[in-house]
Amino acid sequence: MKHLFILLLCMPLWGMAQQKEPDYVCPPCGQCDAIVYHKPGVCPHCGMTLVLRDTALVPGQQLSSICFYLYDGTEVLDFAGPLEVFSYAGFKIFTVGKTKAPVTIQGILKVNPDYSIQDAPPADIFAIFGGDDDVAAGDPEVISWIKSRDGSTKGYFSVCTGAFVLGRAGLLDSLTVTTFHNSIQSLQKAVPSAKVLANVRYVDNGRIITTAGISAGIDGALHLVARLKGEAEAMRIARHMEYDKYVPGQGLVVKH
Amino acid sequence: MKHLFILLLCMPLWGMAQQKEPDYVCPPCGQCDAIVYHKPGVCPHCGMTLVLRDTALVPGQQLSSICFYLYDGTEVLDFAGPLEVFSYAGFKIFTVGKTKAPVTIQGILKVNPDYSIQDAPPADIFAIFGGDDDVAAGDPEVISWIKSRDGSTKGYFSVCTGAFVLGRAGLLDSLTVTTFHNSIQSLQKAVPSAKVLANVRYVDNGRIITTAGISAGIDGALHLVARLKGEAEAMRIARHMEYDKYVPGQGLVVKH
Repeated sequence: MKHLFILLLCMPLWGMAQQKEPDYVCPPCGQCDAIVYHKPGVCPHCGMTLVLRDTALVPGQQLSSICFYLYDGTEVLDFAGPLEVFSYAGFKIFTVGKTKAPVTIQGILKVNPDYSIQDAPPADIFAIFGGDDDVAAGDPEVISWIKSRDGSTKGYFSVCTGAFVLGRAGLLDSLTVTTFHNSIQSLQKAVPSAKVLANVRYVDNGRIITTAGISAGIDGALHLVARLKGEAEAMRIARHMEYDKYVPGQGLVVKH
Repeated sequence: MKHLFILLLCMPLWGMAQQKEPDYVCPPCGQCDAIVYHKPGVCPHCGMTLVLRDTALVPGQQLSSICFYLYDGTEVLDFAGPLEVFSYAGFKIFTVGKTKAPVTIQGILKVNPDYSIQDAPPADIFAIFGGDDDVAAGDPEVISWIKSRDGSTKGYFSVCTGAFVLGRAGLLDSLTVTTFHNSIQSLQKAVPSAKVLANVRYVDNGRIITTAGISAGIDGALHLVARLKGEAEAMRIARHMEYDKYVPGQGLVVKH
């Protein structure tokens, strides 16, 4: 009985000790990503600066849910390519609109969102797409909502000018990113601290992946699947989709 | 007054004469497609058997509308790729479901069709996509509806297993066609008189284009744009979509 009492007394201290020692990993480099460190610093294998495990998408990590935020004027292929890829990779995908009113995609397709920003559940990954991006990026309520979910969001994925929405939420500061080929300069202007690259299919910063325009979302999604579930799984999906044009590693993985 | 009377008397005869002499063109070959003949026969330039102009999609032809038929279980990228391409090419696109009730795409996306099969207007091109294709192919009402529109439909476009729907409507008989890579044999069984090809991105029969699986719809759509509006227009759209992986002429154009 005495031992049980001492054990119960010590549990909060043990919890505090755990909180003081979070896990660290190196950003994805393909070699030593699975090694977990208990202190910040530099990875002794690849030399990259370690990041908190909770803020990195690491191989083998069980990420099961993706929130697709849709707004009037979303570009159809921007979200449909990743939707195809992620659904075959076994992710649970749901759509969110600002309200539950139908959203008009590409001026043509009328989509009923599963949730509004009032009742959307958390998701491991938040995905945002291009088109008339200012409908979302210029809406303070939407930006506040994205920020309010940051604590429970493990990763971000933008296609095309969806990057402007992440930028407005302050998520791209000081990162290397990309966007639609006609919007490179304007994104650079919108997020001066970021390094906005042209002529790259996607840029992977660990927690945040931004892709180039429209069809590049397919490649970015396959890359994310490759990172989380292995290249063989990405290749399986690419073959199923008859996307034999997929070239693994065609984007940039930023080494922090 | 007398001349006017004679003119009015002759008009029906003139109309009959017009009906007896329809226009013929050669199927698309890239050289002499724009030449119009007034009798059936063989094109003196390319040697191909002439087809009725009304049943061929000829370069420069003003085709402005495309009907996207959607059903529960439609594969998302099957229709989203062509939707992206055709919308940039300036086509008027509308969606049709069996009813106006929301259609669930890929088990995820809830789409409200613009029309049902009860009130859908005619369209120059009828487009159908793969997925749980038997939902459409196995529905006699849907097949009857497709057949009933044949007189006003100038061209057909199928992606992936959408070919089974066209097959069930009797539209693929004796044609060279393709479909999803896992369904080549079953389509051959379903349409014994057709020649079902594997390992081809799309097959263009003039009036009917069938494409391979899922992402191949993008290439098939760009090919159709190239044929109707020129390769420069298709390349412009491919560049806009950052689909630099588009390879013009990667499919098969059947010479009848």
